[in-house]
Amino acid sequence: MKLLEERILKDGIVLGDNVLKVDNFLNHQIDPVLMQQLGDEFARYFADKKITKILTVETSGIVPAVFTGLALGVKVVFARKQKSLTMKDNLYSATVYSFTKDVTNEITISKQYLDENDTVLIIDDFLANGQATNGLMEICNQAGAEIAGVGIVIEKSFQKGRKILEEQGMDVYSLARIKAFENGTVQFIEE
Amino acid sequence: MKLLEERILKDGIVLGDNVLKVDNFLNHQIDPVLMQQLGDEFARYFADKKITKILTVETSGIVPAVFTGLALGVKVVFARKQKSLTMKDNLYSATVYSFTKDVTNEITISKQYLDENDTVLIIDDFLANGQATNGLMEICNQAGAEIAGVGIVIEKSFQKGRKILEEQGMDVYSLARIKAFENGTVQFIEE
Repeated sequence: MKLLEERILKDGIVLGDNVLKVDNFLNHQIDPVLMQQLGDEFARYFADKKITKILTVETSGIVPAVFTGLALGVKVVFARKQKSLTMKDNLYSATVYSFTKDVTNEITISKQYLDENDTVLIIDDFLANGQATNGLMEICNQAGAEIAGVGIVIEKSFQKGRKILEEQGMDVYSLARIKAFENGTVQFIEE
Repeated sequence: MKLLEERILKDGIVLGDNVLKVDNFLNHQIDPVLMQQLGDEFARYFADKKITKILTVETSGIVPAVFTGLALGVKVVFARKQKSLTMKDNLYSATVYSFTKDVTNEITISKQYLDENDTVLIIDDFLANGQATNGLMEICNQAGAEIAGVGIVIEKSFQKGRKILEEQGMDVYSLARIKAFENGTVQFIEE
């Protein structure tokens, strides 16, 4: 998605060989107009998949997921990274390791909001090693829900996430695909 | 806001004397259409305040804040509850105690996204004891930013949050104001 690539080049900050900081429009400050454009694009791509629910994981996947849900006319459920005091039982759960933060979280979704009648679109902000997406897929499997595809805002294509998801037959649609970071600048895969 | 009160009566679950669970449309599953209506209403109320930025705190304040930002044409910044590895220095911070979760978090906002030229609208999902809102106000004070007002989705009016904020001269606009929970049902303040 040209618009997103241009925004990454303008406002993204490359840290070392591996980290892209997009705190300017996605992960800390949020540009609502851009987010709606991202959601509309996910909705366009997955329009004929009969999606009944969007699944994501807190925090930064939520806003692109909600605009996708708005465009597709379906609700969004975000997995929580720790259990809250008001939600203790009746949960699907999976374990997710975050390389960026070096922590392992249990992500959970209430059984009330996902079941075998759902066709799910998984949305997340980043795809690197595929840990978060795999956790959401595991939760869909626990629920017996069908997974229609995975929508990613920014894919680090030099990491193994896409390969892992495609090996499981997933349709992965990433709005920006990063080939490499070279001398502090972002190189995209040309499609 | 009639629409929100009706939704709370339909889908909210009262737990004990004090807790309202709105996991059906706000805190776990999200209804994007309702969230846009909430954002539009905040934008209508604060339309003439020359807002330059919306501030909120992760997680559940983010979506109403983003729809408010979309309607007002301004960006949103969400405070993080713990520091990430990619954001270490140059932070405003405040300490927030959550009664619901019984944890104390440090909330932080990068100095890059808030300064003395900003006129801020603070948005949050719940107002109970006012801890989170007070933390965001403290951060605005550190930045020298002006605070135009506070927009709350659900206010528990029987707790002290509104009083604390009004004593500091805040214009607090809550879309639903709960007087009490009586026999497991929600009683609203009639306006």
